[in-house]
Amino acid sequence: MGPGDRATATEIQDAYELGMLIAQQGWVLLTGGRSVGVMDAASQGAQQANGLVVGILPRSDRDHLSAAVDIAIITDMGNARNNINVLSSDVVIACGMGTGTASEVALALKGSKKVILLNTDEGSQAFFRNLAGADVLISETPKEAIRKAKEVLQGLIF
Amino acid sequence: MGPGDRATATEIQDAYELGMLIAQQGWVLLTGGRSVGVMDAASQGAQQANGLVVGILPRSDRDHLSAAVDIAIITDMGNARNNINVLSSDVVIACGMGTGTASEVALALKGSKKVILLNTDEGSQAFFRNLAGADVLISETPKEAIRKAKEVLQGLIF
Amino acid sequence: MGPGDRATATEIQDAYELGMLIAQQGWVLLTGGRSVGVMDAASQGAQQANGLVVGILPRSDRDHLSAAVDIAIITDMGNARNNINVLSSDVVIACGMGTGTASEVALALKGSKKVILLNTDEGSQAFFRNLAGADVLISETPKEAIRKAKEVLQGLIF
Amino acid sequence: MGPGDRATATEIQDAYELGMLIAQQGWVLLTGGRSVGVMDAASQGAQQANGLVVGILPRSDRDHLSAAVDIAIITDMGNARNNINVLSSDVVIACGMGTGTASEVALALKGSKKVILLNTDEGSQAFFRNLAGADVLISETPKEAIRKAKEVLQGLIF
Repeated sequence: MGPGDRATATEIQDAYELGMLIAQQGWVLLTGGRSVGVMDAASQGAQQANGLVVGILPRSDRDHLSAAVDIAIITDMGNARNNINVLSSDVVIACGMGTGTASEVALALKGSKKVILLNTDEGSQAFFRNLAGADVLISETPKEAIRKAKEVLQGLIF
Repeated sequence: MGPGDRATATEIQDAYELGMLIAQQGWVLLTGGRSVGVMDAASQGAQQANGLVVGILPRSDRDHLSAAVDIAIITDMGNARNNINVLSSDVVIACGMGTGTASEVALALKGSKKVILLNTDEGSQAFFRNLAGADVLISETPKEAIRKAKEVLQGLIF
Repeated sequence: MGPGDRATATEIQDAYELGMLIAQQGWVLLTGGRSVGVMDAASQGAQQANGLVVGILPRSDRDHLSAAVDIAIITDMGNARNNINVLSSDVVIACGMGTGTASEVALALKGSKKVILLNTDEGSQAFFRNLAGADVLISETPKEAIRKAKEVLQGLIF
Repeated sequence: MGPGDRATATEIQDAYELGMLIAQQGWVLLTGGRSVGVMDAASQGAQQANGLVVGILPRSDRDHLSAAVDIAIITDMGNARNNINVLSSDVVIACGMGTGTASEVALALKGSKKVILLNTDEGSQAFFRNLAGADVLISETPKEAIRKAKEVLQGLIF
């Protein structure tokens, strides 16, 4: 998860690497499906590594679908689909922060999911740590995020 | 799409065949994801033919997930997820009829999707034909349903 | 519930009367909220009789909100909001029939709600009766629909 | 909006006062509808002042409905209903903070709504200010929150 239109160059680059690493693990990548920002970059990275990409689209048309999405889920429910994104994910990685991403992190934590924060400032980290303690994990690099995700999936972080 | 708990033996059998045929076409099968009735049988059939199966679950737990679903989308929005099922499908095939299936057929037609009815009585066929005319296609067998689905996808039925 | 853009003059007239009668019972009217067809007419009727009208809008803007709605609920979830319409209603009255209305009737019956059909042809009545038996009630006039709704609310029809 | 099960005594007290003040303004109070925490207290306060209370429930049953809710909207879509809460509100007041409340504030800001924060620590205020700047308003007391809400509604804050 991460910013769409307002993603920074670093977030885009890290999202692309995250997508590649996720695919290399044999995991399915799930994103918000649109052809912008972090979701598009992660999808491109996963496609590059021959991964499978699921995109959960907010609207009913496919006009803004990322070209790297294999399976498009059309929700037509706007940002309420953010709850589906996080409930359907085994681990949530947030790359960057914005209002949409913040809603996904909050909904994930509300749904007792582990969330790994990447490219977030200390204020964002402290905010979510205050809300949900150890369910919030901090990473400095995509590789570290993947390593933590793997530990979550293996039950080493709980 | 089709009945869950109340599916008949014929519906189950045809759903299994539909799943196999869908997978053999190289198509992705999308179902309601639960481990009962038509959705489970179609998923089993597709799995048997090495197909990819997406299951859109109504609730937030995976307890009732069909074992033949590859990708589970967790909506936690009950029967409102029926709208996601049909909007995400290129063609909708309804195998049998019940209140849930009727809602999916109606939502699909509302969303201007083609719907192929299989194992439905003449009253159901007439009802939906009256509502949506040529968007409602009737099939007698799974094979015929697949042939019509292919024609829809090829733009031969519009 | 009933057709929007394609409502007939009779459906509009009966919807207006239904709205008035609902308000006169002291009941809250819940509709799909838009400024067209049966939902608008029913809302106008209820407003005329000083009733309270709740409109559950499919989109995020209020552009198409009926002027007779007192409380607008903005879902931004398209036709998936039809499930909210019926779950929030103590009794569902369908005035006329279309793909949207059919989805609401089906979702209501799926949710074990009583549905009263008005201005529907025999084919529609038989279709839903086949699906849900005694949960489907048939009325010839708005007054009869209200009388049946009252019996449902009083527990006389169950 | 505010915490349910984990609301503090101060949050409960302020929510009750907010509900009273909202009703005294002649405004409709919209809450998450459940019989706990901030939503229940605000509803009780509004009821005490003869206000109208709309409760948007996450599930399909009314078991946990606040006794002070006049109009219950049954969404059966879990926390995805948080998006409906904020889109349907002219102004959002968050009293306290938790994962659910954070998702509502984020979704409100994503939907370009003004949000007034009450009983939130400096970290939370800074977090949302960073995300959405002047759309985030800070209040020290319920009375100040109402005064700011009034200014938003009058177009004095934009």
